[in-house]
Amino acid sequence: MSDVLADLPTFLNDSEPWFRSALRTLVEQPTVSPGMEDDAAILAGVEVARGVIADSGAEVEVVPSGGTPALIARFAHPQPKARVVIYNHYDVQPADASKWAQDDPFRFEVREDAEREFLYLGRGTTDDKGPALCGLRAASWVAKHDLPIEIICLWETEEEIGSPNLGDVLEARKELLSGDCVIVSDTIWPSAAQPAISTGLRGGMFATARLRTGNKETHSGLTGGGARNPLRELAALAAAIERAGFWRLDVREPSAEEIESYGRSGFDIDYFRAAHDLEKLATDVPIEMMLNLWARPTFEVHGLAGGYQGKGVKSTVPPEAELKFSFRLVPDQTPERLWERLSAFVHNFNPDVELTRLGSFVPYRGAIEGPVHAAIVHGMREGFGKQPALVREGGSIGAVPMMAQLLGVPVHFLPLSLPEHGYHAPNERFDWKQAKGGIAAFVHTFAKLVG
Amino acid sequence: MSDVLADLPTFLNDSEPWFRSALRTLVEQPTVSPGMEDDAAILAGVEVARGVIADSGAEVEVVPSGGTPALIARFAHPQPKARVVIYNHYDVQPADASKWAQDDPFRFEVREDAEREFLYLGRGTTDDKGPALCGLRAASWVAKHDLPIEIICLWETEEEIGSPNLGDVLEARKELLSGDCVIVSDTIWPSAAQPAISTGLRGGMFATARLRTGNKETHSGLTGGGARNPLRELAALAAAIERAGFWRLDVREPSAEEIESYGRSGFDIDYFRAAHDLEKLATDVPIEMMLNLWARPTFEVHGLAGGYQGKGVKSTVPPEAELKFSFRLVPDQTPERLWERLSAFVHNFNPDVELTRLGSFVPYRGAIEGPVHAAIVHGMREGFGKQPALVREGGSIGAVPMMAQLLGVPVHFLPLSLPEHGYHAPNERFDWKQAKGGIAAFVHTFAKLVG
Repeated sequence: MSDVLADLPTFLNDSEPWFRSALRTLVEQPTVSPGMEDDAAILAGVEVARGVIADSGAEVEVVPSGGTPALIARFAHPQPKARVVIYNHYDVQPADASKWAQDDPFRFEVREDAEREFLYLGRGTTDDKGPALCGLRAASWVAKHDLPIEIICLWETEEEIGSPNLGDVLEARKELLSGDCVIVSDTIWPSAAQPAISTGLRGGMFATARLRTGNKETHSGLTGGGARNPLRELAALAAAIERAGFWRLDVREPSAEEIESYGRSGFDIDYFRAAHDLEKLATDVPIEMMLNLWARPTFEVHGLAGGYQGKGVKSTVPPEAELKFSFRLVPDQTPERLWERLSAFVHNFNPDVELTRLGSFVPYRGAIEGPVHAAIVHGMREGFGKQPALVREGGSIGAVPMMAQLLGVPVHFLPLSLPEHGYHAPNERFDWKQAKGGIAAFVHTFAKLVG
Repeated sequence: MSDVLADLPTFLNDSEPWFRSALRTLVEQPTVSPGMEDDAAILAGVEVARGVIADSGAEVEVVPSGGTPALIARFAHPQPKARVVIYNHYDVQPADASKWAQDDPFRFEVREDAEREFLYLGRGTTDDKGPALCGLRAASWVAKHDLPIEIICLWETEEEIGSPNLGDVLEARKELLSGDCVIVSDTIWPSAAQPAISTGLRGGMFATARLRTGNKETHSGLTGGGARNPLRELAALAAAIERAGFWRLDVREPSAEEIESYGRSGFDIDYFRAAHDLEKLATDVPIEMMLNLWARPTFEVHGLAGGYQGKGVKSTVPPEAELKFSFRLVPDQTPERLWERLSAFVHNFNPDVELTRLGSFVPYRGAIEGPVHAAIVHGMREGFGKQPALVREGGSIGAVPMMAQLLGVPVHFLPLSLPEHGYHAPNERFDWKQAKGGIAAFVHTFAKLVG
């Protein structure tokens, strides 16, 4: 195997111009998730991506769905010893240009950087177009070296809205996609200083609670005490949910070994604080923070709409208001049980509130044993020069539990993004140090799998 | 006295064209309170009002203040037996034309009405230009009939923003304005079916509570559980304030006689509900509702700014948020004690919250005995054909406690507005039935005072 890998360092160094050019091509396609801006831009972007993939030597197929299509790149082998799907997504979050340093978030920019060699700036660089290109580049190396492994890159276009039509794609190409495993490259290391492998995802459930008590705004002097104030009642509901126990049930506590591994992850509270530009944190105790972020459910308020938002105070009682909120779920919680308990709680607390469920993801817990896991651990160590820590992910990827269930294969993670890359945030970026290490990590993982 | 009043019915009937014309003139001046839209419009409006007042036979004076000026109309008498100030205000709330049935809220419209004879539509018709003209018209009648009473109409231009500079005017003309009493015509009957006299006002205190926990919006999957969510914390603060006892202290319970009088006020819950277009009320028990509206403090949430206000849910944790809220105060509460208690409570509940006090009004309790009160009761009975009930007002008028204190005279109320007139609301209106009765009530009050 060492012979096969002899040219890898040269290949990696030679890959930067290709990577930069391919990433520029993909980022400058404004493939904002369907239903949010311009769906035609996604379809145009898929055609562009098809060209990038074909240039890498794969057979490309655009697979239609009930929504926007997915791309499948196949690097076939006549006698594969293993078949692996690399999952990424090609859709991106919207970008509010007014909050970005660059004029246009969809105009790709490159900056030299002492530490990271090159920074690649633009919407989608780290979430998830950069990692997608690392997998593709590694697959093309594998194909060129005739390793006995079939690699299939699956790029969907609806991840940021919860993958509502990914099931169509999985059903349509089930045989092709049901190999030995799926490797997802769409998660984040806790710290740039320490490679890490995600072993689980939180789930989520999004909802609104609406209350109407009248049909027009009234003057709080004239009606205050008589009118029911929907803002005050929904604030009370939010506080009651926060204090309640129902959304903390069914949590499988992480094992002592898992907690110990978190402690080795390189997670650093000051780094976390700086990366997310936070001032005040829920806790200053590192292990408590990791448990909060990865292994415990949350209740978040995202907005209380319907009141006055301008300067100062306007002394009126609004006729209606809407609380926007979500929960993050952890194993073994399920959205169905949570919804039942939430509905009962809200109905009991304030029967006039109208609750609407908007979407949900089940939490996911990946295997931390077996040959695929061992190969990824090996690949990450070779690619980044350090034994990876096992961590979890605070966010949710709807596609993950869906692929595990519909394809019946284990889903693993090979994360390449960093906190400071800014998932979903202004000034999103990726960098060459992560990309180069990522391509190497994928190559070493594949080589180990069939070695 | 009966001889003097012989021509009053004819005078009232002949007054409608004058009233309509004068009200049109005043309403079509968009005298929105200073600092909100165009202060030059107030100054122009004051010149127009000066003409209307001068045509009524008064000496007019425009009295400057640190803000916009007040108008003083003096109907002098060589040997007055009584000296009365009628207080009204000439500034109005802003009007959002998109919510009005008429194209322009500052274009006066008249509609015939079977019940009310004529409806006068436009911003300021009932709050407070219509009632101001009733007092002016009655004063001109008194002057014409040489009743031994001096009447001074005081029209200020900053009532809707809490009368920040009225003190300047009161100090500058203190001798002139310190007569036997001030009569305020800027409050509301509980029901069109029952004349009512206000005997007290709630006070108010407005504030914001601001919490910053970061410097940018973050993704709730990545930071949820670690980041402190300012929306969730401020909702919890609002709920805690609602449950707390501190803002319910120092309340002087109304006497048994007062509560009995509320019961005779004609207050009707269905009427209240319909007038304010409310669907759900705090209580369905009439006397509880009156106590809630008039004699009990309130805590209202007016807005929770900083979160997502659009459709659905956006899964982010905002870096900061601001709770906008107020209290209504009742005798014997004071804004100073309430502020002290609020500050201590908030500091204890969440020391990171930054509290800002925006403005306040002390509550007011008027005399319900003595010759002025008796004259107003008599005047209302004669003007509207029914014994008035004694009620209170849920709203706040900063000028009232200020005049009582700075002039050292009792402040009484002669209310002419109805709930359906729409104080501060779209489609504000006044009507000739109230105006005619109001002019008569003022005339009978003055005649009784010196009779």
